[in-house]
Amino acid sequence: MQEEILRMLRESKTYVSGEQLSKQLGVSRSAVWKAINGLRQEGYVIESSTNKGYHLEQVPDIVTACEIKNGLTTHSMGQHVVSMEEVDSTNEEAKRQGGAGAPDGSLFLAERQSSGKGRLGRSWSSLPGEGIWMSVLLRPDITPYEVAKITLIAGLAVCRALRSASGVDARIKWPNDIVVGGKKLVGILTEMAAESDRINYVVTGIGINVNQKQFPEEISAKATSLYLETKTPWARAPLVRSVLCELEDFYDRFITEASFDLLIPYKELCVSLGRQVSVQRGDQTITGTAVDINSKGELVIQTKEGNLFPINSGEVAVQGIYGA
Amino acid sequence: MQEEILRMLRESKTYVSGEQLSKQLGVSRSAVWKAINGLRQEGYVIESSTNKGYHLEQVPDIVTACEIKNGLTTHSMGQHVVSMEEVDSTNEEAKRQGGAGAPDGSLFLAERQSSGKGRLGRSWSSLPGEGIWMSVLLRPDITPYEVAKITLIAGLAVCRALRSASGVDARIKWPNDIVVGGKKLVGILTEMAAESDRINYVVTGIGINVNQKQFPEEISAKATSLYLETKTPWARAPLVRSVLCELEDFYDRFITEASFDLLIPYKELCVSLGRQVSVQRGDQTITGTAVDINSKGELVIQTKEGNLFPINSGEVAVQGIYGA
Repeated sequence: MQEEILRMLRESKTYVSGEQLSKQLGVSRSAVWKAINGLRQEGYVIESSTNKGYHLEQVPDIVTACEIKNGLTTHSMGQHVVSMEEVDSTNEEAKRQGGAGAPDGSLFLAERQSSGKGRLGRSWSSLPGEGIWMSVLLRPDITPYEVAKITLIAGLAVCRALRSASGVDARIKWPNDIVVGGKKLVGILTEMAAESDRINYVVTGIGINVNQKQFPEEISAKATSLYLETKTPWARAPLVRSVLCELEDFYDRFITEASFDLLIPYKELCVSLGRQVSVQRGDQTITGTAVDINSKGELVIQTKEGNLFPINSGEVAVQGIYGA
Repeated sequence: MQEEILRMLRESKTYVSGEQLSKQLGVSRSAVWKAINGLRQEGYVIESSTNKGYHLEQVPDIVTACEIKNGLTTHSMGQHVVSMEEVDSTNEEAKRQGGAGAPDGSLFLAERQSSGKGRLGRSWSSLPGEGIWMSVLLRPDITPYEVAKITLIAGLAVCRALRSASGVDARIKWPNDIVVGGKKLVGILTEMAAESDRINYVVTGIGINVNQKQFPEEISAKATSLYLETKTPWARAPLVRSVLCELEDFYDRFITEASFDLLIPYKELCVSLGRQVSVQRGDQTITGTAVDINSKGELVIQTKEGNLFPINSGEVAVQGIYGA
């Protein structure tokens, strides 16, 4: 019912009387009053006046199902939303619910992660109210080999969403970090459960630094936020919707259009290309210039001897990024 | 302590006195007596004589950690054993424990599976005492793409183990069913949890039909067991050890030897090659002759027009197998 009342308050430019709300919803005036108080506890600022009724003055920066779905234009992504105050990690929750049958496009969000995860088994710091910690569950009919493409799609979609929503010059560090001016704005962790030739589900976890005003000493040289880049706080729910829209758009094209070439828009935004890079392969460090991303989605490194190495995994250090 | 007593009884060709057992283990005679009774409850036939002591007459056909480890020569596979009376599916248990950190090579066995799983989301029938329902947890440092090779390795290892242990003419139906005379003897289901470029763990579930004397009507034309092929019951623990040995041998070579060509021994045993096959690709059915397995582990089908189709997933119907 809170959701219904919120919708009615949003739609009205003037005050809505308690009587009108109670009639339209078929509930008592005191039930309306309780729901209004529930919304206020979530942070909604609702003006009330004895004669005129209720008026929505301000929407809080929360990422509840209700806020995410308000104005969401996707057909699948984010249609099922699980919003949590705290969780171990949104990816872990998405995997648990993925194993239990949650639908394609399910979205998992949390204000706090007690053990947020980054790529290659690393931890990821996620303070409450300052970032977007979200995971999307996908059930593509592809082989595990092609999941590397979903990694690229996630990077591309998030990069484009943040560029258009906030105006920052976000770029992709291969395969799917999003950076601004050499500092990390977004980390993405794609995981899957699969048979050797068939995906059960894919979970794409996206951590976006939004309103952080500073970072811990040890990462401050390598991390940034939308706030730090624009000197402005950002409401998170609209950013989540932008990400879902871009993600759905590219994902749908990847799944349905045989001729869709993801690499064309991807390479345009990939900051790794043309730069000096190095990567560890077993005991060996390969150093050279990142010259291409091939059709498998691998980063191709050309050494100064002219040899080409396609890289499909691991951490690539890129000159000018993260202080390298 | 049961394990220790069992080891001492096994090692002795004659009777072992209760006094000897209690002295060597530093426990009371009544503790020895309790442990002997525990073993009897598991099915061990232990003769006791007032003057001479205890003598192991017969070992039951059980797949406990103790029986599996007795004479096991591997260094990793099966060194950690979880043996259960009943579980939903050994693969599900292996995945749960894989997520919780169980070591590389862990073996999960059950007498009964309440919801055994086959490939492509199918169910798998697993009656108590008649088959081997086992899963091995692996933590290879490979990309998800290469997991298809582990599928082939599992098929090859199990096929070779059963051929040498039981003498049946077992063959591999690509990618990893094991068949005898066109009927299914073994099903294998390989699953993984992974990032897009890094494996967390791989679980290879192996279901071997051992002592079934008959199968339900609906699968009797397509299924067989070692018993049906040899007219002899088989002890399961030695078969498990054979599988673990072959699996470790091929897996170690795959992981450590760059020059190891899995396809040479695999193709020798692959019954699909040279036969008429068909497979569904979207709306299309591809029909032709299976002419090769390429370096990616894909089955290559040549149509009568001479076109070559590499197949990396799905169910391939092979003429002469499973009634096709």
